[in-house]
Amino acid sequence: MVSRKRDIMQALEVTYRIRGTETEVRVHAESVLLEQTVETPADVARRYPFVRDEMMGELRSLDSAGDGTFLARMALPTATASVDAAQFLNVLFGNSSLHERVTLEDFDLADALPLFRGPQFGISGIRAAVGVSDRPLTCTAVKPVGIPFEEVVRLCRTFAEGGVDLIKDDHYFADHPFCPFDDRVRACLDAVEESNARTGRRTIYVPNLSGSPDQVLRQLDVAQQVGVRAVMAAPMLLGMPFFHELTHRRLDVPVLAHPSFSGIQGIAPAASFGKLFRLFGADAVIFANYGGRFSYSQDVCAGIAKTLRTPFAGAAPAFPVPAGGMHVDRTAELLDFFGNDTILLIGGSLLQAGDRLLDATLSFTERVRQAARSAAKNSGGA
Amino acid sequence: MVSRKRDIMQALEVTYRIRGTETEVRVHAESVLLEQTVETPADVARRYPFVRDEMMGELRSLDSAGDGTFLARMALPTATASVDAAQFLNVLFGNSSLHERVTLEDFDLADALPLFRGPQFGISGIRAAVGVSDRPLTCTAVKPVGIPFEEVVRLCRTFAEGGVDLIKDDHYFADHPFCPFDDRVRACLDAVEESNARTGRRTIYVPNLSGSPDQVLRQLDVAQQVGVRAVMAAPMLLGMPFFHELTHRRLDVPVLAHPSFSGIQGIAPAASFGKLFRLFGADAVIFANYGGRFSYSQDVCAGIAKTLRTPFAGAAPAFPVPAGGMHVDRTAELLDFFGNDTILLIGGSLLQAGDRLLDATLSFTERVRQAARSAAKNSGGA
Repeated sequence: MVSRKRDIMQALEVTYRIRGTETEVRVHAESVLLEQTVETPADVARRYPFVRDEMMGELRSLDSAGDGTFLARMALPTATASVDAAQFLNVLFGNSSLHERVTLEDFDLADALPLFRGPQFGISGIRAAVGVSDRPLTCTAVKPVGIPFEEVVRLCRTFAEGGVDLIKDDHYFADHPFCPFDDRVRACLDAVEESNARTGRRTIYVPNLSGSPDQVLRQLDVAQQVGVRAVMAAPMLLGMPFFHELTHRRLDVPVLAHPSFSGIQGIAPAASFGKLFRLFGADAVIFANYGGRFSYSQDVCAGIAKTLRTPFAGAAPAFPVPAGGMHVDRTAELLDFFGNDTILLIGGSLLQAGDRLLDATLSFTERVRQAARSAAKNSGGA
Repeated sequence: MVSRKRDIMQALEVTYRIRGTETEVRVHAESVLLEQTVETPADVARRYPFVRDEMMGELRSLDSAGDGTFLARMALPTATASVDAAQFLNVLFGNSSLHERVTLEDFDLADALPLFRGPQFGISGIRAAVGVSDRPLTCTAVKPVGIPFEEVVRLCRTFAEGGVDLIKDDHYFADHPFCPFDDRVRACLDAVEESNARTGRRTIYVPNLSGSPDQVLRQLDVAQQVGVRAVMAAPMLLGMPFFHELTHRRLDVPVLAHPSFSGIQGIAPAASFGKLFRLFGADAVIFANYGGRFSYSQDVCAGIAKTLRTPFAGAAPAFPVPAGGMHVDRTAELLDFFGNDTILLIGGSLLQAGDRLLDATLSFTERVRQAARSAAKNSGGA
């Protein structure tokens, strides 16, 4: 039999990476534990039996990572963390995010917190919506912000005719006077669905939601009323608790999470994009891929993708969406690296084809089909 | 006459700090400019006149900071940024927050964006609410999370009798079943106002708002209905656009901003706490002080405090609230350092007085009065 204390504290186990000498880190790990639990001198906190037994957490292990950092594994009190989504982040990495020696390396929920349900749709839901079960999906972006309204619509139509599965707004598209959300969503959806009617495909137009909760919920109402079949939102821009409220209570369709404003300093990418975004309800997670404009390594990207698909806290698997300055030439390499349950997002480089955009798009989507066929052949599949 | 392009781009000037050799940084600064404006290959973006003239921003200067980093000053397009609060952050430091070599050093708004109004109350509004015009204010926290309900109320009463100006919830206080928000707010407010009726002071009880927008707005309604005269919220936990909506459209009382979860993005503290929090509506900003549990230097803390009080984008000055592991013994030193328009927050260390909490509190508030009197004498003031 485990104690009541252990029961309560089993559910949230967090690993922080702390920089320093072993002597420094031993002291600092105890400070982090205090900071993330009661944020009160320990002698004061221990006066109260309920606080002492259920709020103070425990340091489970402290191991050198061999590179001047140490991994401190702690059990944190779910009795505090589980009450709302903001409080969960607060306990996970609130004040300690301000300590420059500390990063959040990983966390685990032994049992799902009833607060979080993860993706409503996940990989299988997005596959069902787009009607593709057997290959990686393709995604592209309508951009740049500021192009004429008719050009936005023309790009949507061309991408749909080129066979792209998901056509998303650029993340700089908001409810701008020069391209209002309501008009854009209607026109883009019409263009894509007209193309679908001709081709028999089920390409999805994905509008970007941006603003305060009132603004985003208004946009979402418009989008869902006209029949949009997926949306995009940036959890860290909108605020994670609002993102969770959105996915959990308002969305009838899948959501692609955009990484804008997610930072790089404080939380390991596999923990933020692979676990937090998914736990809070992202069905697919866009992240900065290796070898493009960003600096993530192959290992980091593989870690994000793997984490998104691995069983975690009762949440459905979510699609990894590697992106950021990639070229169509890399299709085979990237699909070989990321595997079948991937959405490959190629944006700006397609647009460089100019008048030959339809050809470039067809070439992109055909390369993905080809890569999937050879992968299936190599594995002896259909 | 300046060109239309310059007019539009004067309003948002951003400085990024980029790490690397001069050759690397010259290339990287152009990439950051593209990333934060059109996020599309430049040759594609330049095809469209409106995009070329009004969306692409410009690199204004690039100067070595002498420490292996360079400061890149850029004008960014307010036509994109000004449409909503999420989009503002997106343009300010969205994707570039994912570049490990880039931090956001500073930003300026030559003219106030009509979107942001800054603090509704600011320093003068909080001084009016608490009825103290001539000295630094005192603040303490009710904690730790998990103490019995009656103990929460007793602490409030003792702090009020000890003459503290602002008594805030600990940032781990949420709507927990063991200390529900509605009951806590009513009981703490009653305790403090009863004490005020006896002493003639106007001490303010400051409840913490936590959760998703729906949860926070419900808590705010309860708090405002029972007559709370200030609230606390953590902008980065709740999400900055929601925090802005809250301050801008829902709050009838001042708000203290808590820094929890603010550390992951790579934003210089004077820019995040001094400018962003204030622009989005914080009337007072709590930050991790030097010489306590956190690692900010004296210079960084002085920079935050100065920035909060310096004219910026038409926003009212906001109170700096240095905090984090400070002892009453440091009162004179800290007030000498931070000056009169400061709220000094001392939490946990007061509680170490145990049965002598009232005496410790009286000693804290008396030291602040004393320090203010000697500062006034030294400056020849009243």
